[in-house]
Amino acid sequence: MSLHGGNIYDFERGQEGEILDFSSNINPLGPPPEALAAARSALSLINRYPDAKQTRIREAFAKWLNVGAESLVFGNGASELIPAVYRALGAKRVLVVSPTFAEYEVCAARLGIEVVRFKTEPGDNFAFPMDEINSAFSSGDLLIACQPNNPTGRAWSVGECAALVDLAAERGGWLMADECFINLADPSCPSLLPALSRGSVVVLRAVTKDFSAPGLRIGFTASPPDIAARIRDELQPWPLNCIGEEFAIACARYNTPFLSLSRAHISAERERLTEGIAKQGCKPFPSAANFILVRSMERSGEAIQTALLQHKILIRRCFNFIALDDFYFRVAVRNKKDNDKLLHAIARI
Amino acid sequence: MSLHGGNIYDFERGQEGEILDFSSNINPLGPPPEALAAARSALSLINRYPDAKQTRIREAFAKWLNVGAESLVFGNGASELIPAVYRALGAKRVLVVSPTFAEYEVCAARLGIEVVRFKTEPGDNFAFPMDEINSAFSSGDLLIACQPNNPTGRAWSVGECAALVDLAAERGGWLMADECFINLADPSCPSLLPALSRGSVVVLRAVTKDFSAPGLRIGFTASPPDIAARIRDELQPWPLNCIGEEFAIACARYNTPFLSLSRAHISAERERLTEGIAKQGCKPFPSAANFILVRSMERSGEAIQTALLQHKILIRRCFNFIALDDFYFRVAVRNKKDNDKLLHAIARI
Repeated sequence: MSLHGGNIYDFERGQEGEILDFSSNINPLGPPPEALAAARSALSLINRYPDAKQTRIREAFAKWLNVGAESLVFGNGASELIPAVYRALGAKRVLVVSPTFAEYEVCAARLGIEVVRFKTEPGDNFAFPMDEINSAFSSGDLLIACQPNNPTGRAWSVGECAALVDLAAERGGWLMADECFINLADPSCPSLLPALSRGSVVVLRAVTKDFSAPGLRIGFTASPPDIAARIRDELQPWPLNCIGEEFAIACARYNTPFLSLSRAHISAERERLTEGIAKQGCKPFPSAANFILVRSMERSGEAIQTALLQHKILIRRCFNFIALDDFYFRVAVRNKKDNDKLLHAIARI
Repeated sequence: MSLHGGNIYDFERGQEGEILDFSSNINPLGPPPEALAAARSALSLINRYPDAKQTRIREAFAKWLNVGAESLVFGNGASELIPAVYRALGAKRVLVVSPTFAEYEVCAARLGIEVVRFKTEPGDNFAFPMDEINSAFSSGDLLIACQPNNPTGRAWSVGECAALVDLAAERGGWLMADECFINLADPSCPSLLPALSRGSVVVLRAVTKDFSAPGLRIGFTASPPDIAARIRDELQPWPLNCIGEEFAIACARYNTPFLSLSRAHISAERERLTEGIAKQGCKPFPSAANFILVRSMERSGEAIQTALLQHKILIRRCFNFIALDDFYFRVAVRNKKDNDKLLHAIARI
């Protein structure tokens, strides 16, 4: 059993035909055509080493995001950058707010870093425990805020973000905002990019979800330049592949209309999917993101996953998220046709 | 100044036209057409996560190399795997034979692992100091043998390989053979793949050089399965990109005729290039590989590099290899037309 969604290979093996993957949270619009064309052109570059200095890709994203190129470090997907950030900061403890993305804890454990876990509760829609965080946050701590949070879809508010930034600065710690889903959030969630100047903030992003390209493995951090230099030192000389690099540069150029369209599509479909799921007697939690956490009232996630696989649909069971159990599952928001198939299948099982 | 070859981006910036890159040691025949076609087809897979279990790619290489699939771990280029091997083995010291690939020492330093360095001398064509290695090798040590060695082109003999394997087993240490250039070596060099059963050998390889695809970042280790599991644990969940994965699978299938042709081409051109360089009053060292280390008798590597750049040719200076100085430089063996350009340019400067 994989720790993550998206492991459709296990489920497809021995099956006929493709499975609709609601287990990984990818932009349902597919990759932007301009970026796909850039990836195709980049096939002529594979006999060269990628640019170890990441000059063009850093410049393209610096322009898009209005940050300094010297603040950006690109890696082989956001997953590679999490341990690099821990090491670069020399974090003494990692503070996580459960349930959330499992890699934060997995990486800390692998590096022998103590984890402090704050729980959130379904009863109040997984509201963030600001008082507890405030009490615990100490010098050398790294607090991770997933914005919006995976798998709950809950977003940190403007006030909460400001409080976390202040806390990190005042207590001599750091704040890492994982904004891998932020470009698909609607209504929009506050980003911590404008807080980089405070000196103790790292923002983690990827082109994986926004631009529907988890197969190309391109993620990045934005941080104060001195921290960026330390993160770069933790990576190998050539973390990027040239196909992903050119794809990402095109994404940075053509982002605005593509992401606007994506958000409009996702929020409309998310509301429709939420209503449809609620009608089937499950409890979907309010989400700002391109996925929905659902509480099943009767059947276990295992039973629901097995039954939906008969309809060639894969959902994400949530029993291995800290603070959840096997009555929770997560579904991605896909396109209208796919979402209809999901609703239809749920009605039949 | 980069620690490695292949940083043509720095040299091309502000220049007109392409530079002929003799600084990185890539198969001059270019990527195999079947593999390039597989990479192109893989563009339709980028909206999926890569297979975290690496099932198909491990099976393809297991079949080619006649090793168990459970012995193989693929990563984002061989460079990513070096620190993963150090950590997986818990190496107490890393033993290197200088001059050699710089990353072995760089990674050890970054992880706080002590480095023991054995020097080889140009006077006897960089013969390996077997007696010194024998005296120093202790329990918990990891000896690295680059086969054939970069940048000298010297190969470890059958007898030397056997002695190293025995040493590692008897002393309770490990041996890592970096065989990233072995498929292009002619005459052929002994591989340590048949020695995996001894339990203390790790073989490092890549598709970078053999198949002319450093831009795709695919490398792997072969080791006893228990060590393989530990190496995999050191990597992130999705180290591979889908383009590189499909390219590599095709390379594993079509390797035999392509690599035979490549070796025949390279060894003929290497002899021609060696003779041509010797005629210009430089000293080329005998090489089994697809590159040649050269000692300049009069001018420094810096002066030669600068002069050749006027001819749009980039060579690899060697002053930052331990045990060499700036009178050494390294050139890759390219195709006949490019090699003629190099010889012509050397004659004119």
